[in-house]
Amino acid sequence: MASASSHHASDEAIAAFVARVLAGEHRAGARTMRLVDDRHPLAIELLRRLHPHTGGAQVIGITGNPGSGKSTLTDRLVAHYRKAGHKVGVVAIDPSSPFSGGAILGDRIRMNDHALDPGVFIRSVATRGHLGGLSRSANDIVLVLDAMGFDPILIETVGVGQDEVEVVRIAHTSVVVSVPGLGDDIQAIKAGLLEIADVFVVNKADRDGVERTVADIRALQTLAAAPDGSWIPPIVRTVAVQDVGVSELAQAIARHRASIPPDAAAARERRRVAHILESLVKDRLLDVMAEALAADGGRDALLDRLAARETDPYTECERILRGILPQHGQEEA
Amino acid sequence: MASASSHHASDEAIAAFVARVLAGEHRAGARTMRLVDDRHPLAIELLRRLHPHTGGAQVIGITGNPGSGKSTLTDRLVAHYRKAGHKVGVVAIDPSSPFSGGAILGDRIRMNDHALDPGVFIRSVATRGHLGGLSRSANDIVLVLDAMGFDPILIETVGVGQDEVEVVRIAHTSVVVSVPGLGDDIQAIKAGLLEIADVFVVNKADRDGVERTVADIRALQTLAAAPDGSWIPPIVRTVAVQDVGVSELAQAIARHRASIPPDAAAARERRRVAHILESLVKDRLLDVMAEALAADGGRDALLDRLAARETDPYTECERILRGILPQHGQEEA
Repeated sequence: MASASSHHASDEAIAAFVARVLAGEHRAGARTMRLVDDRHPLAIELLRRLHPHTGGAQVIGITGNPGSGKSTLTDRLVAHYRKAGHKVGVVAIDPSSPFSGGAILGDRIRMNDHALDPGVFIRSVATRGHLGGLSRSANDIVLVLDAMGFDPILIETVGVGQDEVEVVRIAHTSVVVSVPGLGDDIQAIKAGLLEIADVFVVNKADRDGVERTVADIRALQTLAAAPDGSWIPPIVRTVAVQDVGVSELAQAIARHRASIPPDAAAARERRRVAHILESLVKDRLLDVMAEALAADGGRDALLDRLAARETDPYTECERILRGILPQHGQEEA
Repeated sequence: MASASSHHASDEAIAAFVARVLAGEHRAGARTMRLVDDRHPLAIELLRRLHPHTGGAQVIGITGNPGSGKSTLTDRLVAHYRKAGHKVGVVAIDPSSPFSGGAILGDRIRMNDHALDPGVFIRSVATRGHLGGLSRSANDIVLVLDAMGFDPILIETVGVGQDEVEVVRIAHTSVVVSVPGLGDDIQAIKAGLLEIADVFVVNKADRDGVERTVADIRALQTLAAAPDGSWIPPIVRTVAVQDVGVSELAQAIARHRASIPPDAAAARERRRVAHILESLVKDRLLDVMAEALAADGGRDALLDRLAARETDPYTECERILRGILPQHGQEEA
């Protein structure tokens, strides 16, 4: 929590700032995102005011295994959409260390080709420590980019863990990138991603084994229902480093968006907003928990007692919960 | 929450059941884990009673990129420890679908070679929907395996996301598995895993590029302090499918455990118990949230209004939080 005084920006000042964000001003957008990152009290008010101006942008999730060349593909998609005259937002989810909070990504350096282009806004989201918040951060950034007029907005995740799957839940279209020649584990991952994939990409399609990979995906598809009724996720072959297949991918994405029946689109929108709301509530509850744990004066002594097994985490958890949730204690009694 | 009546097992019945778990009876252990999975009210009581009997087992985390052959390596490590006379527990974290909750893992079938061996207990943990809980489930299962007398306990994760990194935080020794010849993204992942690695493995070390991979890891090591003071994580080369390097890996794990100075070991134990406690509190808070959202009678109407942008998630989040946390409303006022 920041100081209370900083909360009290005048209504006129806030309105003027919001107008700058809505006008697509990069500095105002970046400042909003920083306030969100810092959990500044003003952030919620800004997001609340931007919200009615959003919903227009198509959000495209790009996920898949490490080493599949997602970053290059994202880079080429950005170039494709720029050529077609779109302002493009990119949210890049970094697999940063849970401890240091930082990772060195060659990928991001490559994306800097677009850094001087005002029609592109790239924002990296680091995982914010072990209390989560990745989904919520991504949601908020997408909202700001949408309000700024960026459309489409690409969310690129590195990795295929639960966190990454969560993040692409807010996408209108999810692209799952595979690559020929990875091991057995990959099949398991694909099964996990199958139900979120609207479009499959087999990147590095000039490599041996591409037919096998395509066949594997087709086999997996027969195991699961298509996510949106009649839509059968197409498999697009790309060689991103040579810009091969990128416009075909963009077409498949556009076709997906256009071909969802209104009912399925409405159901998907409800799932999206439900996910956004839950991410927000979850994040706030974890803030409350972090505050409660930090405020626990006996924390060091408690950890000593836990380490010595003089008490157990289940008992201590109940004690902490009773402090946070008054009704919790009553339920127990 | 299950019905209140099922909570009231007699103290004698609970004590007798706990004795069976402590005697290492597979059926009693598996039943305990199912009660934990189902969030049965008895589960907490059982875990509380088992807790004082735990702490003896060495917990070994095995993580790394998909396709690195972690499952085969885990399989061979299990065989190695069995040959040395140990009872081995395995917790396998599955990257299951967030929707269907199931994945088909060839890996698990392979592990079935050990299924008839009473000296091995394998438990898969699926990700339990998008409210998290992976870490907490893994912690609880490790506790039960420890109480049953399994030592060592291997936690194998598929994937290198934040969730997986979280899970291996309870390990005494974390093994990070790499493989030659993956792409750029891998470097970022390695940076993220660097600080949790106590032992590096380069598996499939009969492949081209192994020297490059080893050199990359060494280069990354110079960027970060060793996690436990003077210990410099060794790099072990393995070819798991040929059982090459597996006993060297087991030696490196044993050396790590033995060579941590008491201070560092104590600090690590405090981090472990802090993590276990936080996972538990987090999980319980998310339960409370799920209940609050489910109990919100106007949920469908709310999602419609959110989808139509008649309200915004920030406003609705505050409303929901005021319902869960009475003091939250007071802070706002």
